[in-house]
Amino acid sequence: MGSVALDDVETPSGKAERILGGAATFGCVAASRFVKPEMVGIVGDDFPEQHIRLFEECGVGTTALEKKTGKTFHWEGRYHENMIHRDTLLTELGVFEDWLPQIPESLRSMPYLFLGNIHPELQLHVLKQMSNVKLVGCDTMNLWINIARDELAEVISKVDVLIINDEEARMLTEKVSLSLAAKEILEMGPSVVIVKRGEHGATVHSRDRLFFCPALPIDHVADPTGAGDTFAGAMMGFLAKTGNTEFSDICRGVVMGTVLASFCVEDFSLNRLIHVDDRQMEDRRKMLEDMVKA
Amino acid sequence: MGSVALDDVETPSGKAERILGGAATFGCVAASRFVKPEMVGIVGDDFPEQHIRLFEECGVGTTALEKKTGKTFHWEGRYHENMIHRDTLLTELGVFEDWLPQIPESLRSMPYLFLGNIHPELQLHVLKQMSNVKLVGCDTMNLWINIARDELAEVISKVDVLIINDEEARMLTEKVSLSLAAKEILEMGPSVVIVKRGEHGATVHSRDRLFFCPALPIDHVADPTGAGDTFAGAMMGFLAKTGNTEFSDICRGVVMGTVLASFCVEDFSLNRLIHVDDRQMEDRRKMLEDMVKA
Repeated sequence: MGSVALDDVETPSGKAERILGGAATFGCVAASRFVKPEMVGIVGDDFPEQHIRLFEECGVGTTALEKKTGKTFHWEGRYHENMIHRDTLLTELGVFEDWLPQIPESLRSMPYLFLGNIHPELQLHVLKQMSNVKLVGCDTMNLWINIARDELAEVISKVDVLIINDEEARMLTEKVSLSLAAKEILEMGPSVVIVKRGEHGATVHSRDRLFFCPALPIDHVADPTGAGDTFAGAMMGFLAKTGNTEFSDICRGVVMGTVLASFCVEDFSLNRLIHVDDRQMEDRRKMLEDMVKA
Repeated sequence: MGSVALDDVETPSGKAERILGGAATFGCVAASRFVKPEMVGIVGDDFPEQHIRLFEECGVGTTALEKKTGKTFHWEGRYHENMIHRDTLLTELGVFEDWLPQIPESLRSMPYLFLGNIHPELQLHVLKQMSNVKLVGCDTMNLWINIARDELAEVISKVDVLIINDEEARMLTEKVSLSLAAKEILEMGPSVVIVKRGEHGATVHSRDRLFFCPALPIDHVADPTGAGDTFAGAMMGFLAKTGNTEFSDICRGVVMGTVLASFCVEDFSLNRLIHVDDRQMEDRRKMLEDMVKA
């Protein structure tokens, strides 16, 4: 569940307009490498039919993708030279503005749920509709830490796996040490916290375990947009495929998330991601495995 | 070879005055866990005799530690809240100012040399005195990249292993991607580049190999001073002990460097480092090994 967007993105590598984006887009397409996910989102009547077809070709279910008169969520952003920080130039919520996500009856007993980065109240609203969830993953962002901290804390108390980046983890806990920050977030409720560290990789924290997954070396990042959503979607898809939710399964999911995110950033929108074959995925997974062997 | 200093250090964890510091100090004491290193440095007549005794108790040779009338190098620094950035409040070079390092005849055929972070011209001067070096490691800093780039490039062209942090690697190469930056530095001469990434760990780059060593999770950093020198010294000491200089040996050296640096930052000066026993070292080495197992 998350945004489906038409983005204008400018990075040091180039510029693209009205390209397919949004957390649900990247997350579901990544998850579709492992399972047949259902996308929960909303688009306007300006949303190109070809994008819907693309979702379906990828095996992404669109039963819960609402179509409504109005404009699709539109984001315009420009990345800094470091490819980490970015300025939002424009956000037009469109049909997203008063969206109250409804999970169709047929999907309410699905076992794996990922709450993409939207207002924590909407994340709670979705969570309450699900009746049989085995594992709930969740993403968030600095905005909600600043303006909806209490609601966010409630969401965090109800999820199994929180995915958060290093800056957000520090902001949420006011701890400098990421290790301490992760411990404090674990106290808030989740059994696992995944801290994304950009080009340095990601760490998976539980009360008694710690796993470090490096990032793959990428010489030329074209566009980092969607990397975090791709990471999360691939991890959730991998877990759903295995059917297990042990710490070690989550770690292996993080490895696959890292692999797919590494492809995502090599081009704008889904351009690279949808052309990745199993062999290329396995090559990068193997590379990650070899990278930590002394 | 490097500085031997009496430092005033202030961090968010506390403050200490006239404490034993300097690259040669941390580097040699760390290396002494594996071999009997020789310290090349200079101190003034204000340098406490007890520090010399400490070096000797650790098994650090002081034949090439010059004593001269005048003041020992003195640095005063204050760390920011993030424990990464710091402000230098005062630097008094003292006897360090016109030091021209002389390697005694008896030490000129030692097989392993580490050039601590001093002016590249002095690093070259030391390197030229050595007659039989099997492996040369080298550190540097942003200052030399800014004011002595040509001399630094000459040093880099003559060393086997360059150790550099992420910010310096970007500054030296003007590349945003650390992967690309490392490739460019390899083009300058070294067969191996080690990029230190602070709390995210370190990467070891050669023309055809890449190794990622995570950092150990440290909840409470007391003082980061000397962590990089400890890392380098332990790596060099480990290599000297094994007698091998293959990529995989350097990687295992980086693991031991990471282990010893994790102790170094837990207290000021050498306070923690000199009390670490083999069992504690092995526990952390094992923890690093387990951290990358999915």
